[in-house]
Amino acid sequence: MSYDRVALIGLGLIASSMFWAMKRAGMSGHVTGYARTAETRDTARKIGLCDTVCDDLAAAVANADLVVLCVPIGAMGPVMAEMASYLKPGCTVSDVGSVKRAVIDAVQPHIAPNIHFVPAHPLAGTERSGPESGFAALFDNRWCLFTPNGADREAVMALSSYWQGLGANVDELDPDHHDLVLAVTSHAPHLIAYTMVGVADDLHRVTNSEVINYSATGFRDFTRIAASDPTMWRDVFLSNKEATLEVLGRFTEELFALQRAIRTGDGDLLHDYFSRTRAIRRGIIDAGQDTDAPDFGRTKS
Amino acid sequence: MSYDRVALIGLGLIASSMFWAMKRAGMSGHVTGYARTAETRDTARKIGLCDTVCDDLAAAVANADLVVLCVPIGAMGPVMAEMASYLKPGCTVSDVGSVKRAVIDAVQPHIAPNIHFVPAHPLAGTERSGPESGFAALFDNRWCLFTPNGADREAVMALSSYWQGLGANVDELDPDHHDLVLAVTSHAPHLIAYTMVGVADDLHRVTNSEVINYSATGFRDFTRIAASDPTMWRDVFLSNKEATLEVLGRFTEELFALQRAIRTGDGDLLHDYFSRTRAIRRGIIDAGQDTDAPDFGRTKS
Repeated sequence: MSYDRVALIGLGLIASSMFWAMKRAGMSGHVTGYARTAETRDTARKIGLCDTVCDDLAAAVANADLVVLCVPIGAMGPVMAEMASYLKPGCTVSDVGSVKRAVIDAVQPHIAPNIHFVPAHPLAGTERSGPESGFAALFDNRWCLFTPNGADREAVMALSSYWQGLGANVDELDPDHHDLVLAVTSHAPHLIAYTMVGVADDLHRVTNSEVINYSATGFRDFTRIAASDPTMWRDVFLSNKEATLEVLGRFTEELFALQRAIRTGDGDLLHDYFSRTRAIRRGIIDAGQDTDAPDFGRTKS
Repeated sequence: MSYDRVALIGLGLIASSMFWAMKRAGMSGHVTGYARTAETRDTARKIGLCDTVCDDLAAAVANADLVVLCVPIGAMGPVMAEMASYLKPGCTVSDVGSVKRAVIDAVQPHIAPNIHFVPAHPLAGTERSGPESGFAALFDNRWCLFTPNGADREAVMALSSYWQGLGANVDELDPDHHDLVLAVTSHAPHLIAYTMVGVADDLHRVTNSEVINYSATGFRDFTRIAASDPTMWRDVFLSNKEATLEVLGRFTEELFALQRAIRTGDGDLLHDYFSRTRAIRRGIIDAGQDTDAPDFGRTKS
């Protein structure tokens, strides 16, 4: 463990999982935690989350060798500004935001020359949120993507080792490319799932109890995604506007083409399209990024 | 068990699961099976699927008290026409198609006055297909929807008991309403998932290996849905055209409204929308139609 003191700012799913993963790995450093609301801090204390829970941000970051911003993207800039003057010279600041360009733009201006800023994004999560939702295995075999943006190499390497200690694989990407990739693999799918669940809720010819009882495979999976934290996701879309809208534009085009095939009865086009998409699933399973168990294993065979 | 002899026509995920569920329940009847290709019949024989696998359709249905059509929707009419003259007087014909109006229109004309036709749809499945994909628990606590369309009540009741024996809950719906409900809870979500996975495959600025490795939660779930059987789904869309296109129309409208909110930075609209969709998830879990485990339980916490 290269950090003697780590500060986790914002105590939700990601920060709490980081803490439990550090403990599981036997990392010896001291971990301070801070959350904006007294309620979250009380919960954290009750469940033993962090070695010390601080009531103010300055106390949490003072003396920390690594400070990780685990707050919604919209809060990253303001929180960074607030803590900037309390940071220990030579320390590393990182984050876990799902969008990287906007976080860099918001955080970087507050980074003093003697502070290292290494933006990071662990590709892990569940539909749960809050301090009680974390668990040690969340990052196992998931990717943590770094967008170093010219950061000191030694600081990047130390943070890489840290994340590998939490169970993750690490890789580096250009921030803008990261945001486009994530628009495809995460942001657009989330917006689409939210939309479909909203339509079901709103279609008055079908009752909510029908939707709930007869939620066949397909829709059930969408509702899981659409149960994710609203604040986090609002901030993701507002801060990754361009890439998300680009991908959604392509999505709409393609959806119109498939709708036309349905309307005109072009079965060959549909069959070819549906055959092609099977291969992507196989690739994800072969890469170890999802379970091969039918229905994610939730139905026991 | 009210049927002495059951014939399963088409030996894919649903038929094979029905057979294993019958055996699990200790149902005493004899089960014949038929599949169009010799390869499927050989596989069935090898794994002990069905008490007798028949090489022709006539032999499979002769003497059966219950014949269940488990073929893709587009094949239901032709298969029914082919077997019509071999059916035992007084027997019940049923099906497992995901669309009911089109199946009724295709099958009913071939039903003789002394045969009972009870259309049915078990809301169960996985992304797997073929004779080896079935398992006994597939229907446990899932719904099997009947759209009796004036069928003999005794025949409906016998089929209800049979499906309850396989583990399912049963309910009755009007065929057109069934097709609209399923367009919302299954057909539109599938088309959307296929589309999003197709876009990812096709977006040349992002490589397939990036999509595969960095497939965050959200997209991974879509790929599972988009790995479903292409022939089955082609037929679903072609035979539930109107309801699917209606729901997709509403979906597109709503998606445009959310895209506009992203473009104009209307965070309140997004946050309200995302909060509303959480409630639907809760309802589905409370109704016992999905697991409450984070990430469907595929990440062990």
